Amino acid sequence: MSDRFAELRALAKGLGVDAIALVPGPNFTRILGAEFHTNERAFVVIVPASGTPVAVVPTLELASWALVGFEGETYDWPDQTGPADAFAKAADALSLTSVVVEGQVMRVFVHHHMARAWPGLTILDGEADISSLRLCKTDDEIAAMSEAIRISEESLEQTLGRIVAGMSEKEVESLLVSTMFSLGAEDFAFTPIVVAADNSARAHGHARADYALQDGDALLIDFGARWGGLCADITRTFFVGHAGDLAQEVYATVLAANSKGHEVTKAGMTAHDVDDAVMSVLEARDDLGFKIGSKTGHGLGRAVHEDPYMMRGNHQVLQPGMVFTNEPSLKKDGAFGIRIEDDILVTGDGCRSLTTFPRELRIL
Amino acid sequence: MSDRFAELRALAKGLGVDAIALVPGPNFTRILGAEFHTNERAFVVIVPASGTPVAVVPTLELASWALVGFEGETYDWPDQTGPADAFAKAADALSLTSVVVEGQVMRVFVHHHMARAWPGLTILDGEADISSLRLCKTDDEIAAMSEAIRISEESLEQTLGRIVAGMSEKEVESLLVSTMFSLGAEDFAFTPIVVAADNSARAHGHARADYALQDGDALLIDFGARWGGLCADITRTFFVGHAGDLAQEVYATVLAANSKGHEVTKAGMTAHDVDDAVMSVLEARDDLGFKIGSKTGHGLGRAVHEDPYMMRGNHQVLQPGMVFTNEPSLKKDGAFGIRIEDDILVTGDGCRSLTTFPRELRIL
Repeated sequence: MSDRFAELRALAKGLGVDAIALVPGPNFTRILGAEFHTNERAFVVIVPASGTPVAVVPTLELASWALVGFEGETYDWPDQTGPADAFAKAADALSLTSVVVEGQVMRVFVHHHMARAWPGLTILDGEADISSLRLCKTDDEIAAMSEAIRISEESLEQTLGRIVAGMSEKEVESLLVSTMFSLGAEDFAFTPIVVAADNSARAHGHARADYALQDGDALLIDFGARWGGLCADITRTFFVGHAGDLAQEVYATVLAANSKGHEVTKAGMTAHDVDDAVMSVLEARDDLGFKIGSKTGHGLGRAVHEDPYMMRGNHQVLQPGMVFTNEPSLKKDGAFGIRIEDDILVTGDGCRSLTTFPRELRIL
Repeated sequence: MSDRFAELRALAKGLGVDAIALVPGPNFTRILGAEFHTNERAFVVIVPASGTPVAVVPTLELASWALVGFEGETYDWPDQTGPADAFAKAADALSLTSVVVEGQVMRVFVHHHMARAWPGLTILDGEADISSLRLCKTDDEIAAMSEAIRISEESLEQTLGRIVAGMSEKEVESLLVSTMFSLGAEDFAFTPIVVAADNSARAHGHARADYALQDGDALLIDFGARWGGLCADITRTFFVGHAGDLAQEVYATVLAANSKGHEVTKAGMTAHDVDDAVMSVLEARDDLGFKIGSKTGHGLGRAVHEDPYMMRGNHQVLQPGMVFTNEPSLKKDGAFGIRIEDDILVTGDGCRSLTTFPRELRIL
């Protein structure tokens, strides 16, 4: 039987540390093959460069943990006593002077439990190193993400077919979420954003129950299903009834920037290069008086935001199997915002858009 | 103008530390009056026992941050350079030797940024101390939670009216989430759990698309809307067509335990006392051959799991304004599980159930 911890052990050796620690989250789920929720209970798996791994597990999770078939020693702890004893036993079983953790996922209380159990322990943030192990998606992961995208796109199409003028953003959101779950989404990848008119230009717009869609409104929908542990993340912007001249011009500019991302992306380029090409299209239309909403995008996988971050200054080289969002946007306070977002898979000879929902201007 | 940081400053003084640090999450939202998402960007507000607070803020959030009207110094950082410079400037502006942080919310990468910016800094986990400031809910918070509960209960009633035999768990889930959003939920408090028959006894059951509800099945629905930043958390278990004799007996036992929680709760009791009373009802029916699912419950507020944790061994004294879930359950692998969960507000002379959905056995 192959050692599912082989890549973590090799990473620990490469980094010159005694062990890697994982807490529930994307890396944990990928490597252990089971998903546990982040909650108030300390839960950590420590994989040494060599030797037997240990796990500190909430007693409440033991039944689910048994299904994982963990190869190491498990120390469980009940809510009534807290985890200190379980950490002490883990420390007796496994000697450590240095450990690398997922800095973006592990919370401080777990860090402190580890520091107390192993006095003098050097705890390093190896988020980028550990998460780099899932940068290039497997075929199974691409298949799961494609299913998350299929559910999302079909949900969007069904929702659009039921939108009528006078509906509120909240009603559109309700149609969308209903369809996502009925088509098989296991969860949202993130809470959907359904915003129209001036609300579409806001940084943190929430769907409104008290605004009725009107002729000429932009309607921006940014959403995604989660399926098989993988995320979809799609944005389309539509217009109700008609799109004015300025709206058409802004839309065409954002679409041109999005198309540029599809055109230029190939393995061997850097994230910086792609963002530079995409942003240049938007920057050339400074005359429109709209602001650029954000960088080109972010990596997408088991987390909805992950490496590679597609921005100038990030000289990470794109490799086949990486997936990122291509989501240029323009917005103007008090007016409207437009974003077109696709999920792009880097391939050997270019890229393939996993999202296939039409990107052309669509009037509802 | 009153100082919104007064209670944090007093806490820092009481704990004998230089400052309290907050990151986006329930405490941050309550005190700053604005919600920011937890993401890959370092974002922290540091409030000293005396003097001017400082904030390290992602540049991308500056527009939203401006609306907060922060009284201190803000150091923002763009994605392209990372937050190290902003932390260094914050450290120049505010001298610190010790700080208390929210150990359950702050992640290790922020901890490490702080440790680098303030060499020798003692970082203590003060989760319980900081979060204790929101243990007793304000009238506004109770009103918001009541609205979250109203939306949830009406969603459940509307969903039940549309369930027919042969429907899948996934279809029921879809009806429920659609209704929640159309009735005004701003989000889920957590992803709903809709599980029937043997699936209702599983620790981490997910709604199935390939199982059709059958006569005699238990249908357990555990869910809640979020509204105004506050969470609802409700469980009811129904039966399809009819409930067998054993099902009726198990149901009556769980209902008796839930009722016991309502009866005994009053200010001055401890969490231990309530759990002991509720669990004793379940333990007395050991003969049923069902297992107790969990402790009585958990605090509920801006977070769906928070203090007070209602369990034996927790001698925290209940005070008026605290809200907790009363959710006894019994389950048997391969058979079914039953849980009845209410949200209980501790009052001066007893308690009041914020959930009012009928608890009696209901056949669909």
